[in-house]
Amino acid sequence: MPSFPNKSLANAVTLCNIVFGSLSLVYTLDQQFGLAAIFILIAAVLDGLDGRIARRLDIMSPLGKELDSLCDMVSFGVAPALLIYAQVLINYTYSLGLITALLYIVCGAYRLARFNVLDISGYFLGIPITLAGTFLALLALFAAYLPAHLILALLLLMAIMMVSNIKIPKL
Amino acid sequence: MPSFPNKSLANAVTLCNIVFGSLSLVYTLDQQFGLAAIFILIAAVLDGLDGRIARRLDIMSPLGKELDSLCDMVSFGVAPALLIYAQVLINYTYSLGLITALLYIVCGAYRLARFNVLDISGYFLGIPITLAGTFLALLALFAAYLPAHLILALLLLMAIMMVSNIKIPKL
Repeated sequence: MPSFPNKSLANAVTLCNIVFGSLSLVYTLDQQFGLAAIFILIAAVLDGLDGRIARRLDIMSPLGKELDSLCDMVSFGVAPALLIYAQVLINYTYSLGLITALLYIVCGAYRLARFNVLDISGYFLGIPITLAGTFLALLALFAAYLPAHLILALLLLMAIMMVSNIKIPKL
Repeated sequence: MPSFPNKSLANAVTLCNIVFGSLSLVYTLDQQFGLAAIFILIAAVLDGLDGRIARRLDIMSPLGKELDSLCDMVSFGVAPALLIYAQVLINYTYSLGLITALLYIVCGAYRLARFNVLDISGYFLGIPITLAGTFLALLALFAAYLPAHLILALLLLMAIMMVSNIKIPKL
């Protein structure tokens, strides 16, 4: 039986993930887009860590799984969508930037809910929200060198690929 | 067997909830705090509706339950915390406003995950995040007439009450 600190370690790391996702939103609010992107990347590292810790210490739990989804929703759903919107798409014609950002969030929520219910192991159905959010954070870091149309198209692509039936093998 | 539109109606309403929660964040970003608060209140009305629709049409589903938690995390966790932070607590001494807002988000995630795992019926354990988020949105509407210390204390109180063991009967 793992002792208390071990048992809570994976969940504590998961909660650090949502703290960095929320900090990303705070820095987006403050127009510090570079830092906002970096905080999403830190959340992605923590997201990779918590699962590994839980498996290594054999402390995987239903609570941990639920917590993981909720944190992913914030750090890789809401945070990158708001970052890309505020940094690049805020003045895009016909509010298309806002609509695409909202679509990305909705698709992210559906992706996470579907994955939890289907309980597939061995592969992902549709690209994982962590991958999509990390890609968008990297995109935000290089946004100054890229046309807004391309960024809008990539945001839309990520949204569609999350809810697609593409099978991606787990590493 | 409910037909397709009926079957998806409750989930569609749940997804509208997250759209309004996200719009609240967008308006917080734009410093339109009144509208940001109103969007959280609209999300709360939609959150009350989806469960009622699902029960009335007998279309409750595990997917709907997962989706509901993810949407609640955004609309009543992240959105009100960021709203109160940006509107009132952004310049609070020693970053206490930021720390309290992050604590509220972490407690909200823990509250939602715990509730899903325990699967209690008949009563709530700790105040529901919908109730806490709705209270904070109302607080934001009257923030101009209230001292910042009181708002900080109430944000902290909501955070603690969500993860407390207080039993609240379901209506």
